[in-house]
Amino acid sequence: MSTRYVYSFGNGSADGKASMKALLGGKGANLADMSQMGLPVPPGFTITTEACAAYDAGGKVFPAGLDAQIDEGLARLEQVSGKTFGHGSNPLLVSVRSGAAQSMPGMMDTVLNLGLNDQTLAALISLTGNERFAWDAYRRFIQMFGDVVLDLDHDAFEHALQTVKNTRGVTLDTELDVDGLKEVVEAYRQVYARGKQVFPQDARQQLALSIEAVFRSWNNPRAEKYRQLNDIRGLLGTAVNVQMMVFGNMGEDSGTGVAFTRNPSTGENRFYGEYLMNAQGEDVVAGIRTPEPIDTLERVDPAAYTQLVQIRDTLERHYNDMQDIEFTIERGRLYMLQTRNGKRTAPAALRIATEMVTEGCIDRDTAIMRIDAKTLDQLLHPTFDPIGEERATVFARGLPASPGAASGMVVFSAAEAEAWSIAGKSVILCRTETSPEDIGGMDAAKGIVTSRGGMTSHAAVVARGMGRCCVAGAGDIVMDYKTKTMTAAGVTIREGDWISLNGSTGTIYLDQVPTVAPEMSGPFAELMAWADERRRLRVRTNADTPQDAAVAVGFGAEGIGLCRTEHMFFQDQRITLFRKLILVAEAVMKLKERHGEQDLDRLVKLVRGDKPAARAVRQYREALDGLLPLQRDDFIGIFRALEGRPCTIRLLDPPLHEFLPHDNLGQREMARQMGVKAQAIKALVDELHEFNPMLGHRGCRLGIAYPEVTAMQTRAICEAVLTVEGAAAEIMIPLIGDVRELQDQRAVIERTIAAVASERGVPAPMISIGTMIEVPRAALTADRIAAHADFFSFGTNDLTQMCCGFSRDDAASFLGEYVRKGIYDYDPFQVLDQEGVGRLVEMAVGLGRQTKPDIKMGICGEHGGDPKSVAFCHDSGLDYVSCSPFRVPIARLAAAQAVIVASRR
Amino acid sequence: MSTRYVYSFGNGSADGKASMKALLGGKGANLADMSQMGLPVPPGFTITTEACAAYDAGGKVFPAGLDAQIDEGLARLEQVSGKTFGHGSNPLLVSVRSGAAQSMPGMMDTVLNLGLNDQTLAALISLTGNERFAWDAYRRFIQMFGDVVLDLDHDAFEHALQTVKNTRGVTLDTELDVDGLKEVVEAYRQVYARGKQVFPQDARQQLALSIEAVFRSWNNPRAEKYRQLNDIRGLLGTAVNVQMMVFGNMGEDSGTGVAFTRNPSTGENRFYGEYLMNAQGEDVVAGIRTPEPIDTLERVDPAAYTQLVQIRDTLERHYNDMQDIEFTIERGRLYMLQTRNGKRTAPAALRIATEMVTEGCIDRDTAIMRIDAKTLDQLLHPTFDPIGEERATVFARGLPASPGAASGMVVFSAAEAEAWSIAGKSVILCRTETSPEDIGGMDAAKGIVTSRGGMTSHAAVVARGMGRCCVAGAGDIVMDYKTKTMTAAGVTIREGDWISLNGSTGTIYLDQVPTVAPEMSGPFAELMAWADERRRLRVRTNADTPQDAAVAVGFGAEGIGLCRTEHMFFQDQRITLFRKLILVAEAVMKLKERHGEQDLDRLVKLVRGDKPAARAVRQYREALDGLLPLQRDDFIGIFRALEGRPCTIRLLDPPLHEFLPHDNLGQREMARQMGVKAQAIKALVDELHEFNPMLGHRGCRLGIAYPEVTAMQTRAICEAVLTVEGAAAEIMIPLIGDVRELQDQRAVIERTIAAVASERGVPAPMISIGTMIEVPRAALTADRIAAHADFFSFGTNDLTQMCCGFSRDDAASFLGEYVRKGIYDYDPFQVLDQEGVGRLVEMAVGLGRQTKPDIKMGICGEHGGDPKSVAFCHDSGLDYVSCSPFRVPIARLAAAQAVIVASRR
Repeated sequence: MSTRYVYSFGNGSADGKASMKALLGGKGANLADMSQMGLPVPPGFTITTEACAAYDAGGKVFPAGLDAQIDEGLARLEQVSGKTFGHGSNPLLVSVRSGAAQSMPGMMDTVLNLGLNDQTLAALISLTGNERFAWDAYRRFIQMFGDVVLDLDHDAFEHALQTVKNTRGVTLDTELDVDGLKEVVEAYRQVYARGKQVFPQDARQQLALSIEAVFRSWNNPRAEKYRQLNDIRGLLGTAVNVQMMVFGNMGEDSGTGVAFTRNPSTGENRFYGEYLMNAQGEDVVAGIRTPEPIDTLERVDPAAYTQLVQIRDTLERHYNDMQDIEFTIERGRLYMLQTRNGKRTAPAALRIATEMVTEGCIDRDTAIMRIDAKTLDQLLHPTFDPIGEERATVFARGLPASPGAASGMVVFSAAEAEAWSIAGKSVILCRTETSPEDIGGMDAAKGIVTSRGGMTSHAAVVARGMGRCCVAGAGDIVMDYKTKTMTAAGVTIREGDWISLNGSTGTIYLDQVPTVAPEMSGPFAELMAWADERRRLRVRTNADTPQDAAVAVGFGAEGIGLCRTEHMFFQDQRITLFRKLILVAEAVMKLKERHGEQDLDRLVKLVRGDKPAARAVRQYREALDGLLPLQRDDFIGIFRALEGRPCTIRLLDPPLHEFLPHDNLGQREMARQMGVKAQAIKALVDELHEFNPMLGHRGCRLGIAYPEVTAMQTRAICEAVLTVEGAAAEIMIPLIGDVRELQDQRAVIERTIAAVASERGVPAPMISIGTMIEVPRAALTADRIAAHADFFSFGTNDLTQMCCGFSRDDAASFLGEYVRKGIYDYDPFQVLDQEGVGRLVEMAVGLGRQTKPDIKMGICGEHGGDPKSVAFCHDSGLDYVSCSPFRVPIARLAAAQAVIVASRR
Repeated sequence: MSTRYVYSFGNGSADGKASMKALLGGKGANLADMSQMGLPVPPGFTITTEACAAYDAGGKVFPAGLDAQIDEGLARLEQVSGKTFGHGSNPLLVSVRSGAAQSMPGMMDTVLNLGLNDQTLAALISLTGNERFAWDAYRRFIQMFGDVVLDLDHDAFEHALQTVKNTRGVTLDTELDVDGLKEVVEAYRQVYARGKQVFPQDARQQLALSIEAVFRSWNNPRAEKYRQLNDIRGLLGTAVNVQMMVFGNMGEDSGTGVAFTRNPSTGENRFYGEYLMNAQGEDVVAGIRTPEPIDTLERVDPAAYTQLVQIRDTLERHYNDMQDIEFTIERGRLYMLQTRNGKRTAPAALRIATEMVTEGCIDRDTAIMRIDAKTLDQLLHPTFDPIGEERATVFARGLPASPGAASGMVVFSAAEAEAWSIAGKSVILCRTETSPEDIGGMDAAKGIVTSRGGMTSHAAVVARGMGRCCVAGAGDIVMDYKTKTMTAAGVTIREGDWISLNGSTGTIYLDQVPTVAPEMSGPFAELMAWADERRRLRVRTNADTPQDAAVAVGFGAEGIGLCRTEHMFFQDQRITLFRKLILVAEAVMKLKERHGEQDLDRLVKLVRGDKPAARAVRQYREALDGLLPLQRDDFIGIFRALEGRPCTIRLLDPPLHEFLPHDNLGQREMARQMGVKAQAIKALVDELHEFNPMLGHRGCRLGIAYPEVTAMQTRAICEAVLTVEGAAAEIMIPLIGDVRELQDQRAVIERTIAAVASERGVPAPMISIGTMIEVPRAALTADRIAAHADFFSFGTNDLTQMCCGFSRDDAASFLGEYVRKGIYDYDPFQVLDQEGVGRLVEMAVGLGRQTKPDIKMGICGEHGGDPKSVAFCHDSGLDYVSCSPFRVPIARLAAAQAVIVASRR
């Protein structure tokens, strides 16, 4: 038996059914479904996606049997419609439309009015008595066929049409009379001739060529790009729907329209749409005439309107979801051309889902699954007024690094951002890239633009943490700090000029675009409550300040999963103290080595005779003593904001050189503050320089070299815990690769906690001590590490960098290409690479639990806010995810969806 | 029953035996052994290493029962010797010596003449009738006890002695008469008094304190350092040998000496040693009198000599190894004080081992196991004349990065190294660090010095590959390129000054030190042949030039396991061509993207109208066309040198910015050559700059972005294979992380091979295509990768970097400390980290063979030349190791040793 490629529908029955979307495409399956429901669908047939795949695989020829099956389909269609194809007095005209299993609107090809030739044109004229209508259909078909099927120059047709219009002194297509249209058809024939093509009079040949064109359009660059952007994968190809044409432009008793069964912007349960009488679908889209709102149809054609409202109810009841429909009225008779689940905004999605639960249409699980978790952050940030944004001029595009919308005046340094902000100005900080020194300016700015760096660059990570809008890696922009300008595509922006950023799309606009404030509506709260009941994963946040912590708690965070302490070192007084420490740190370490003495008090006595040595040790201790109360206050603030929720604090992580100024000016200023020569600062910076700082002297490697820093941080945490009632601290040691590193640091921490408790005469506070798992070696040896860790927190950013060998600051130069070429399905910094990095996570979970079955495990990389990655965390048996504050709702919802998906497996 | 801590020996019997080395230490076990063999050993007892461990663990007090057992030991000793301890007319004097299970000469403490006090001194005088001898013994003991046991200032004793000598107008200690010695003893007592100590008259107290001092000396910094350097691990502590003193300084019928049963420098089977009559052991060492060669003893004391020669034979027969012995003749009676396996040079080790096989003493496996594989490279490089080196002045020290010895004039740039070398001068290239641009200069130099970077820094790796002597990371040196000087410890060296390097010790000397050429003697060849018969692993080499390849083949390499093609791009004409390519590469890539066209021929037609675009494509193609014949000739040369042995060629690996000049001068020069503005070069360098180049745009990521480079390299290989009869090429793709990268590059390679074959009208040559496994993700997904790879080559350098998160260029700043603290047992760049990196290798081997059971696997990192790592490769089931040419013999031997160790398990 040969493969079945053709499925007919119409006349109240169909060969296919709704569940056959993969084979018939969404459009084809729903046409079959509507036929079976008895809805008025123009008859036709669907050629399967398998036929498309076979065409692709077989060297671009129709698979065996397809031609014969098309013939049979045509024969049935002639029979049902009572018309004949390509000849006769009642000619059958058809549309040929693409339709994949997932909606890809406008991406693939369509041919309308197929079946017209010189002979059927004449028949159509006598049948309709409308010569202009028939000639207009003919000229449209010839143009569309030439453009879409034969790949003739689109502009040549437009030019030919315009020439006739010019000659005849008319402006609109509709002003052309029959003679004019005839002249256009003649001009089109010449376009064909110039392209060395002939318009085929044989309708069957027209059909075969058009089907091929639709098959081919599956792989056009536009469609490929769309599938990639919308994460559409694993489809065979497109189906092709050949359907009897119906005409909304046969007079004032005809019309056409599109409608949604509920409002797709707000979700309101009211029929919503628009139509035009005496028009074709493309006229509605072209916007030459303004369509009417759907409810006015009740006056114009009450019978059709009543029928349409009934169909709206039928379809919603049938699909239990909001539908997007197309219809045509031909001489008073209503036809349904399409129905599909309607696209909707995030607020609308929430309202429709929750109201449908109330209406009893769907259950809560279904409602939870209906929401695309990724879209939730739209609800939490200000957004641009859509009309304002549409009108704005694009300056450049970059990566949508941190969502939201912002307008402000351009500044090119963190210092200026802070100064202007204090002066009450809204600013956008524009940098080639940002570094930890820029934190203050980033916080002061409304938004951040960088010309380099990816989705997990410093700018992106910090901006997301702050909830600050950010467009990163806008590679077309050339920054010039000297002249305080930036230029892209020939346009130069100066300091103080206004720009606007859409951090959700990565677009940078010229001038100010008006914004609208976010609204967390009732349905949002209702659906999130359902999600919280359903999920097993706990959701924490990555936050370094009381402000961020409070925001995240407001979004439902159950604690902090990653509190980075180094950001605290960058503010004014602290950076000076910390730089004082760095300046002498190595000298002190060498003294300790030489004297075999770890204790600073004893060391200072030992080196009494050596003045520079004694001074170094004193300065080191003074810097630590100065930092202690500042850090303690940081933690007190955060513990208070958390109101008893747990807080995982990561000890100092970045390499010391990140805390030093790298420009001459900054080095001179630091030298002045430290009372040393500028040359000494430059020498220190050079000495601390690293070729690959990502793999350098950072994380616990610093704590091992400088245990006093670990002790100072621990003391600050410990004293803060003893100050704030109910504070729950967890100390996390970064960049562990071997269990012995953990043992070393754990010993310092435990000693310090015991010392603080004994000084105060209180029992030692319960502070759990755990480790990041972010070095592959830690994952590989997790059984040994677990013996000394109270918890694991997977730092999947660094784990991805080291597992895949991608520097997240540099990978933008090729990762985009990699994803385009399908070498990686996703950017592994955005969606956790389950095959590689995930394998390490699973190993570590298994090995860790082998040693300590109840060890707590979570993830604190950027992936904690990505729905696919959250699902992986659920499936891997982690206990929690931690993400930036504005992603907390996404993680909560994704965690609930993961439970539901698992329950359905 | 309490633990036994004390084992007596002497008088033809012993409590212990030779196999108890772990408990009794090497010295103690052999003293027991010699006693049981009936050799004349002064009686005594050994306190076990367990006692030392118990002392350490128990808070530095003797474990229960030890004191009583010492008393018993003393009693037996008194009985056997007929002397009494600490009193009486025939007083027993003892030595107290350390002795661990592995020899640590001079690292721990010794006390001699113990048992002397005012009372026994008098008895000794009347017993020996030699007042001067007795007073000399007494003053020596008081000094040694104060220095070693009571930790009094060593210099204070020397100063006291010198003062007396000055007062009395004598130069040598031996010139002091009895009165002088009495005065010294009195001066020593004052040293004690100033240190608030009293010399204990009670012998039993002297003994207890001395035993404690020896226990403590196990953990002195010097001993710890020695164990770390010599990789001595897992020992409990030191044993303590308490032994009756015998005196070689009792007159002309007494004497003392040390000897080796064979020549430890050459291995010659001839009794070798020296002695002094009327002297103590320390006099032999002190070098005040010149000792006599051992064979002259035959004349001086024929009886003792005959007995000694007999003992020599007995010991060699007993231990089946060359022995290092100490003896004393007291009034004509010979005593054996020690025997142990003698340390020997590498040539001696080979000669002794092979000759002992010939003599039937040992079998071949034992001979193979006797050689420390690491020492073999001593044989392959020129070495300094030992006397010349001893006399030379040290300028600075660094890491022993590449073995050998070299002298030359200092230059500070690669360009000067090349120029001076062409002018016939020997030069040493001195740089802060080296980069691939310096290759030419490194090759031209006799040796390389860097002030930064570790054992696997660029300089070190390349130098080892070239067999060029290198001292890396000499951190005390400050380089000043401007003034063309370098300074260390106050000494400044100018361009053109002579220095000498010992790359095996990391020492840099001032001036020229004479060298001696290496000699690969018969025993070397013989033993290596036995090793080759025994090993399973194949041994290849890492070589990039015909010269290196030929050298490696001479050392027994069975092919090339890693031929880095990028070094070939650095020479004169090539670098210009390659830079031309880099200059337009990105522009060409963007054109290809825009036009959706990969083929350069077709692309050039498409962009015909756009002049700059057309020029870019043309320049790109011209650069490739220019490089092709040069690369082809490179490969032809290498294939010829290999004479049919296989050659694994790695495609372009480093990031493109490594090929660009980073200084202003170089950029201006490049701009001139390319006919562009200097600013454009600077912009290009900035654009290609990476934060973490190790994890950046390199390896196959380049090949994927620029498939034409892959194709050009493949074509060059393919055409070379077709030119050289019997050439066996394997193409290796670097930095694979996902199988799809491999598929992409494999397709390009296969297409190119097919194209070359078809052009030439010959069958496609058999060229296997494999991959580096150097990214952790590749190891984790090796099952999928194996499906498309003909072989795996583990790049354990990069695998270590990414698995452990260590940048090999930066890790020196903390890895030393890590090894000292025991966080890692070894520097993981020198010895493969079996627990972490090894785990990945084992996983990849398992997963790869699961997919393709007969897939060939090897290692091509620096670890391929490290014996421990070679053993791991054997145990993991790899097929081959590849290492730098001068390490090939090490790998061959280590591979054989791995087989033997495995067979004994």
